[in-house]
Amino acid sequence: MTDSAAVTIATGARSAFEKSQLLPASERITALNEIRKELEASKDEILAANKKDLELAQHEVDAGRMSESLLKRLDLNKGDKWESTLQGITDVAILADPTGRITYASELDDGLELYRVTCPIGVLLVIFEARPEVVVNIAALAVKSGNAAILKGGKESSNTVVSLSQAIQRALARTSLPDTYIQAIQTRAEVSSLLELDQYIDLVIPRGSNSLVRSIQNSTRIPVMGHADGLCNVYLDKSADTEKAVRVVVDSKVDYPAACNAAETLIVHESVLHTVWPMVAQALVQANVQLLCDPPTLKALWNISPPLPQLRTHVHSSIPSSYTTEHLSLTLSVVSLPSLSSAIQWINSHSSHHTDCIVTESEEAASLFCRGVDSAGTFVNASTRFADGFRYGFGTEVGISTGKIHARGPVGLEGLVIYKYILRSKGSQGHVVGEFGVGAGKKRYKHADINPSSLPF
Amino acid sequence: MTDSAAVTIATGARSAFEKSQLLPASERITALNEIRKELEASKDEILAANKKDLELAQHEVDAGRMSESLLKRLDLNKGDKWESTLQGITDVAILADPTGRITYASELDDGLELYRVTCPIGVLLVIFEARPEVVVNIAALAVKSGNAAILKGGKESSNTVVSLSQAIQRALARTSLPDTYIQAIQTRAEVSSLLELDQYIDLVIPRGSNSLVRSIQNSTRIPVMGHADGLCNVYLDKSADTEKAVRVVVDSKVDYPAACNAAETLIVHESVLHTVWPMVAQALVQANVQLLCDPPTLKALWNISPPLPQLRTHVHSSIPSSYTTEHLSLTLSVVSLPSLSSAIQWINSHSSHHTDCIVTESEEAASLFCRGVDSAGTFVNASTRFADGFRYGFGTEVGISTGKIHARGPVGLEGLVIYKYILRSKGSQGHVVGEFGVGAGKKRYKHADINPSSLPF
Repeated sequence: MTDSAAVTIATGARSAFEKSQLLPASERITALNEIRKELEASKDEILAANKKDLELAQHEVDAGRMSESLLKRLDLNKGDKWESTLQGITDVAILADPTGRITYASELDDGLELYRVTCPIGVLLVIFEARPEVVVNIAALAVKSGNAAILKGGKESSNTVVSLSQAIQRALARTSLPDTYIQAIQTRAEVSSLLELDQYIDLVIPRGSNSLVRSIQNSTRIPVMGHADGLCNVYLDKSADTEKAVRVVVDSKVDYPAACNAAETLIVHESVLHTVWPMVAQALVQANVQLLCDPPTLKALWNISPPLPQLRTHVHSSIPSSYTTEHLSLTLSVVSLPSLSSAIQWINSHSSHHTDCIVTESEEAASLFCRGVDSAGTFVNASTRFADGFRYGFGTEVGISTGKIHARGPVGLEGLVIYKYILRSKGSQGHVVGEFGVGAGKKRYKHADINPSSLPF
Repeated sequence: MTDSAAVTIATGARSAFEKSQLLPASERITALNEIRKELEASKDEILAANKKDLELAQHEVDAGRMSESLLKRLDLNKGDKWESTLQGITDVAILADPTGRITYASELDDGLELYRVTCPIGVLLVIFEARPEVVVNIAALAVKSGNAAILKGGKESSNTVVSLSQAIQRALARTSLPDTYIQAIQTRAEVSSLLELDQYIDLVIPRGSNSLVRSIQNSTRIPVMGHADGLCNVYLDKSADTEKAVRVVVDSKVDYPAACNAAETLIVHESVLHTVWPMVAQALVQANVQLLCDPPTLKALWNISPPLPQLRTHVHSSIPSSYTTEHLSLTLSVVSLPSLSSAIQWINSHSSHHTDCIVTESEEAASLFCRGVDSAGTFVNASTRFADGFRYGFGTEVGISTGKIHARGPVGLEGLVIYKYILRSKGSQGHVVGEFGVGAGKKRYKHADINPSSLPF
């Protein structure tokens, strides 16, 4: 794409965002309903486009260039996916409006009122891979939160994404929102050009592989919200309960190993090497998990009598890089450490600050762990797999952020809004700063809290 | 500085931050009191260092390489500056703790509780110019909010900054906080090296000139909080009241022209070119403001009879760049536009999204302006000069942000914290995700709001 084509897309989104700010929030609900209707009406056309993508993908699978599991994720008509995608639009439509909320209000002087009001961020650039229905999810979240969005799907689903986004634009054309409010782009070159346009685009949200996210983080001045790695740790404290340890570690690793909130490293306190650890290891091996162990955790297993079944096939020596690898499979790195404080230090220097868990019966250890571990989620006796917007009760999820500003951990609609300050003088002469000060005849600031339920105008 | 020296500083700050997380918040109050005491005890030494800076600066002034006003800002013993700097530490110490606040809490299942708790961001790199007492202000804000900080002052104040930061480190050495919690660096080369270290530094806060801020924004992947420009606009609506217009425009421009919240452009609705505008222009000219006018606003003034005094000396033609220039002086660019919507578009494309004001008697125009203008502050009949943390009632100010994520507008201590999620199972078996789902025998999430006043452990 030429730079001027990128500018056209970006300024189209910016201008659509600015126009949308003058419309009441109810127009955005109308737009969500229209989008659902238009997708229903265009079902045959969209599934035909999806079929094209599936056929092309089948060639790739046959040639050994694509995995069967990726192919399956492209299918928009599999199981209840089509219906649940449409229902998702309605689910988002009925969520509480994240914009227009007053989060601070103060009377600075008689007739001078300050309001801090939540509002959309502006223009989002969302880049995702594989599953084409994400275009519908993201469009719904953007419309609901009042942000314009430019969407880029995976190249494997390009026919489907084009067809879905055309339907969305037809729906928008029937509303008062500009049809450039939601736009789709096709190529990496377009993404590269757009990542330069920080004067028009306010936030980039990459959802996909580590390498996708990292390459975007390294190539733009626009703020990026998301996570590259999910290197989650579970720490077995010296007071760990064996049953809890077994359940939490197995669930954290096995429930869905390809997820970013699956555990990748297990840290074992030295004092439970011969008590809790062998039981946990046995359960992991029974669940077909490959263990990459440091010398003490390895030795502890070799010393068990009778020997652990599958010891030779499932228990191996770790190497240093084992502890910085996101396995995303039934593999778990294991290390033993002498103390809670060394475990906290290990996690702070090895984890991706996503979600880390302590298994302990000690309130004090739990408290120290949760304060000391600098991650978006610090869990006590609960599987790392709970780190998820739906499980947290947010209704929907924009993504999971390992950044340290704006939004952290699972991000709901709140992560797509910021705030602005509105200052309103109702005085008969307007308000000027020069009248305030410390001298004689000068006014002082009142700073009296006020509690309006909505903006007075 | 070698890169390894930068790494030593950054890892020292990181490790100090991580250790501090294990200490109770009361230790940070103790540290603030110790810092005040040590600065008082070291007054002679610090003022001697400050005298060195002042002498070196006097040479620069004499040689015409530094302004007299910059020299004055270096003087730590001028007026009540020393006392008010010390008092500032106590003022920050008694503010409410921004950390440890529970902002969301939900029971996900029996005995499974989720808390969202505010916490420090981590390691701050703060870069400022000229006034050396900023090192004390920032150290106090960082300690109060639980963040470690690396500080870089202007080279003109380097002796003072070294002396202040040595005293701060002596004070920290008497507390349980590591003395690398607050560190000062001296050179631009050190800043350049540190800006590369995004694995250790979480947020950069530049406070200074446009060029300082812009060069930092362009040279780091670390998030930057602040503002490069303060291009504030005042718009005179067709329903503007003349007296309010005069007062608000004059105050916005004249109260402190070098401030980022001073007005730089005045937008005049065409219909008030011959009514409100001449009165405003007259007041501005009387206040010695130079006006850079587009043809309609210029013509309106030339047609007044009797002619405006000082028309020839104070009223000039604008050029396109007048409207993207931050004058920071008694100069104001003026443009006429035909409508409210064109004024909103003008502001969105020309302003720095800092603070913009409408003068109007119409509730509808005020509402449209505040919704349509995409700036951190949108003001109605109130001077842009009110955009300030102290005036907003925040007690202290970290800076003013024109970014669109995390914190926007004047930023108080809240801008130096983020949150983490703490999930705690009190169940007898711990909690695992695999037990939840839609099938028979599966648990459903409760998502019941809970209202704890503090963390239960």
